[in-house]
Amino acid sequence: MATTLTRTHQSGKLREEHIGQEVILNGWVSKRRDLGGLIFADLRDRSGIVQVVFNQDFSEDAFKLADSLRSEFVIAVKGKVILRDPETVNPNLATGTIEVQVTELEIMNAAKNPPFFIQDDIDVEENIRLKHRYLDLRRPEMLNNFQVRHKVTKVIRDYLDTNEFMEVETPMLTKSTPEGARDYLVPSRVQPGSFFALPQSPQLFKQLLMVAGFEKYFQIARCFRDEDLRADRQPEFTQVDIEMSFMTLEQFQAMMEEMMAKVMQEVKGVEVPLPFPRLTYQEAMSRYGSDKPDTRFELELVDITSIAAECSFKVFNDIASKGGLVKGINAKGCGDFSRKDIDDLTSFVARYGAKGLAWMVVTEDGIKSQIAKFFSEDEIKQIVTAFEGEPGDLLMFVADKPKVVYDSLGNLRLLLGKQLKLIDESKYNFLWVTDFPLLEWDADEKRYVALHHPFTMPLDSDLSLLDSEPENVKAKAYDMVLNGYEIGGGSMRIYQKQIQEKMFSLLGFSDEEAKQKFGFLLEAFEYGTPPHGGMALGLDRLVMILTGRQSLRDCIAFPKTASATCQLTNAPNEVSAKQLKELHIKTTSINID
Amino acid sequence: MATTLTRTHQSGKLREEHIGQEVILNGWVSKRRDLGGLIFADLRDRSGIVQVVFNQDFSEDAFKLADSLRSEFVIAVKGKVILRDPETVNPNLATGTIEVQVTELEIMNAAKNPPFFIQDDIDVEENIRLKHRYLDLRRPEMLNNFQVRHKVTKVIRDYLDTNEFMEVETPMLTKSTPEGARDYLVPSRVQPGSFFALPQSPQLFKQLLMVAGFEKYFQIARCFRDEDLRADRQPEFTQVDIEMSFMTLEQFQAMMEEMMAKVMQEVKGVEVPLPFPRLTYQEAMSRYGSDKPDTRFELELVDITSIAAECSFKVFNDIASKGGLVKGINAKGCGDFSRKDIDDLTSFVARYGAKGLAWMVVTEDGIKSQIAKFFSEDEIKQIVTAFEGEPGDLLMFVADKPKVVYDSLGNLRLLLGKQLKLIDESKYNFLWVTDFPLLEWDADEKRYVALHHPFTMPLDSDLSLLDSEPENVKAKAYDMVLNGYEIGGGSMRIYQKQIQEKMFSLLGFSDEEAKQKFGFLLEAFEYGTPPHGGMALGLDRLVMILTGRQSLRDCIAFPKTASATCQLTNAPNEVSAKQLKELHIKTTSINID
Repeated sequence: MATTLTRTHQSGKLREEHIGQEVILNGWVSKRRDLGGLIFADLRDRSGIVQVVFNQDFSEDAFKLADSLRSEFVIAVKGKVILRDPETVNPNLATGTIEVQVTELEIMNAAKNPPFFIQDDIDVEENIRLKHRYLDLRRPEMLNNFQVRHKVTKVIRDYLDTNEFMEVETPMLTKSTPEGARDYLVPSRVQPGSFFALPQSPQLFKQLLMVAGFEKYFQIARCFRDEDLRADRQPEFTQVDIEMSFMTLEQFQAMMEEMMAKVMQEVKGVEVPLPFPRLTYQEAMSRYGSDKPDTRFELELVDITSIAAECSFKVFNDIASKGGLVKGINAKGCGDFSRKDIDDLTSFVARYGAKGLAWMVVTEDGIKSQIAKFFSEDEIKQIVTAFEGEPGDLLMFVADKPKVVYDSLGNLRLLLGKQLKLIDESKYNFLWVTDFPLLEWDADEKRYVALHHPFTMPLDSDLSLLDSEPENVKAKAYDMVLNGYEIGGGSMRIYQKQIQEKMFSLLGFSDEEAKQKFGFLLEAFEYGTPPHGGMALGLDRLVMILTGRQSLRDCIAFPKTASATCQLTNAPNEVSAKQLKELHIKTTSINID
Repeated sequence: MATTLTRTHQSGKLREEHIGQEVILNGWVSKRRDLGGLIFADLRDRSGIVQVVFNQDFSEDAFKLADSLRSEFVIAVKGKVILRDPETVNPNLATGTIEVQVTELEIMNAAKNPPFFIQDDIDVEENIRLKHRYLDLRRPEMLNNFQVRHKVTKVIRDYLDTNEFMEVETPMLTKSTPEGARDYLVPSRVQPGSFFALPQSPQLFKQLLMVAGFEKYFQIARCFRDEDLRADRQPEFTQVDIEMSFMTLEQFQAMMEEMMAKVMQEVKGVEVPLPFPRLTYQEAMSRYGSDKPDTRFELELVDITSIAAECSFKVFNDIASKGGLVKGINAKGCGDFSRKDIDDLTSFVARYGAKGLAWMVVTEDGIKSQIAKFFSEDEIKQIVTAFEGEPGDLLMFVADKPKVVYDSLGNLRLLLGKQLKLIDESKYNFLWVTDFPLLEWDADEKRYVALHHPFTMPLDSDLSLLDSEPENVKAKAYDMVLNGYEIGGGSMRIYQKQIQEKMFSLLGFSDEEAKQKFGFLLEAFEYGTPPHGGMALGLDRLVMILTGRQSLRDCIAFPKTASATCQLTNAPNEVSAKQLKELHIKTTSINID
């Protein structure tokens, strides 16, 4: 830096205790105002903003030069900290009672007029923010997201270090094992026709580290999935990846809970009660219609299948007697919803496959409903009792296959929770969902696929079902849920070669395929593999929740758009023919030759 | 874990204070010995080894089962800690005064006989170690490398956090900018014909974070270079990447020194004196023939070019008068080197381009040398004086272009330093090398290339030379050197658009090219860029030095071989035609269709 004005203080940290001191500040001009022979500038650096004042009397040179200042100029100023006049105090600024009388000014760099204001809560098209990401990140609310992100990882690393976990880096250039999402591939220059894959997770390597006797491993690891992106997905994402040997599931969960409690305490100042509540997958689905329930509000699903099975309403009765479910929600006090309101909700649940949304309004004089006539008085009484219905309540029902009932009512519950403002936004509700099914049937591929991944251990009590009824085997798998988001998932792993081979065979792999894809893991399992398990936490999402943002992109410094491009650098881009030739590949869509 | 024998203690941490306690240990059988009705096993876990004893009297079941134990079986034992008999104490073991009387044994997993012993200092072909990396990593000396690696990063992160640096993750899927090494490419599925590149370093992104006002950034970042690998290179490597705004070069260096001193203190218990010595590039080359001198020993290069320019020996004289250098080394006390010894050294320097290695032995009676006859007595006296030669010394000379002189003598110096055991291996000599040339001439490409990278700021005093004599411009660049290894390098960056454009033009980029490659950076520079700079430390190499290893591969959990393959997983491998089709590429060397 060629300047002589090297910073002595950070702008946002000046306070009344500094009054009388001469300070040198470096930063950006956030705003400039002229007022009767005075020039005021808000000087911003990472720590915050302080007002600096130029006046002929303090320095004629500085005053003259200050006339050329524009927003986002980078400047250095020297001056004395003074108390502001009482009437000019700015109570919204941490430095609002003081200002700096400038005696020296240096313009370190000029700036063009930025395409949007560097301030919070701007209303600018996201593509413009992404193209000028370096300006978007200047906005205090964005900077804060990354300060939180830094702090979260610091607390997690400190906790894991204290508990003797070792951070180990695993390869980014690794083997393509197409089971799960689509791989990003990297052509090899040295081995023509061969490709590396970028890791979807360090799963196999962390298990190998357990075979290696590392016992407690973690990594804050970049992972990659080449999938079509939804609003809350990114092609590259970061997970806190943890694995441990020689512990029980309960010991491991307790450790993870303690770690998250530390994060909440140190980052948000929130005390999370331990242990976290635990719900089995079955209970979560049954009560909330979701395997990642938001438990900050009630509005639970009520099951009236047994009533429906006996009732006179044919629609309910048919479904209940054919193995379907009839469940509903009691929207307390929503009896005054209009026909249009209910039509909207009906369209909403239709997105999740529900063919209709039956409803009943509870009144002082019994129920009001188009389907009331199909029920006996006693049946209605049973239903109202099941829902604990009171006058003014709106009961809504979906009758269908379990998946449709859960999806539609689970999402209806979330929608109503928001609409009726039932959610206490100050709450952080953690919980574990456990005992997931080990396998699910993939109708397209006509085979079982692993619900978590092929290395998940079945419940001890279900091992005997692996041959006879694999669809009923539950897994030693657990998800960590926060406010309706799955923020992490993990399992105890299979550590016996025989069970792992059985698992691969259930997934329809031939011996040949299993060997070709995972032979090195099966071989490793023969050399003394300890019992082990672990989990992976989605760091991007966790930071998103803790900063109260709606988009993962706000918590990733240089994110990709939904079409997996970088608006800032224009990656991906075309490359030279020479580069492709060296990699022994050709593009098939365009001719570069 | 289905066992009831959940670990209560770590094997290697048991001490006499635990005598009388009942403990449960989990780990690997390291060794088993039978001795008159007793079975002994060394039980190993991450913390170390303890001896466990099976005896019918403690438990008949355990004793029977113990008979099936083999090396690397995973077991759980329960038993009482007792004092060993004095004659069986093992002073080489931290737990050597105690043992555990086993009352319960569970075999958690069996193990095949490993292909090599799980112990330090094995003599096994590296490919076998890499193929069974999970076994290689079980060896205590390997585990230790990763414990050191974990600790180094922890200390660095703590230091940087305390100093308000924010850890920010930058993208792995980014833009190919072919300036420097060869990129690894990743075909885009969404944009046919386009490619991401894996980052060679986060250079541009960290500079953009400075534009964004983050002020103090760091990242422990994975980087990629698709180059032909030497023994100490890996296709993916890790650097501690640091960038900072609004500081002087001296402030930044002082901070980095303090950080390294912390690492040395906390990891090695070594106090490093601060500040580090500083050598200019010119001085380092002149005294050590290297820009990364190992200063743990002297054996400095002596310049006799001015004597040579006046002397009667034509070979020296010609070179000295044509702008070449004549320099040498005084190998103290090596006057008794045989002709073969000297021939070997001559062949050695020939590798670095030296056409010969002249020599003189200083004796009590003047010098002994094939070239003595070409020098006057006075010239010989001048030379001996320049080298501070004493009887028994061997003076060796190279006369050539500066590059050849430096390369050959610099490497000869290192060779002799090792051969003559001049190096104090307990020393950790840090230093800065500064004032590097900004540019070097690339004879192949017939243009200047940046010695560091195109974003390096020239010395203020040399800015005026950019137009007239760019080859003489020095850079605000600095390398951190430890024991003859460059462990880090950095610079103050160009932050003014005009200087950056000038730099690109010196590198021979057209405006078009500069814009296409780095347009987003040049544009960012227009919006208020602060003065900034930083550095990158090679983590793998630092850990290699601190663990006293000879190979980077020992400090990377799952490294690649010199042909950039993974012996464990067999990556890279062939992938399916479907995968390539989705990525819009074809291989040119083999037909997968």
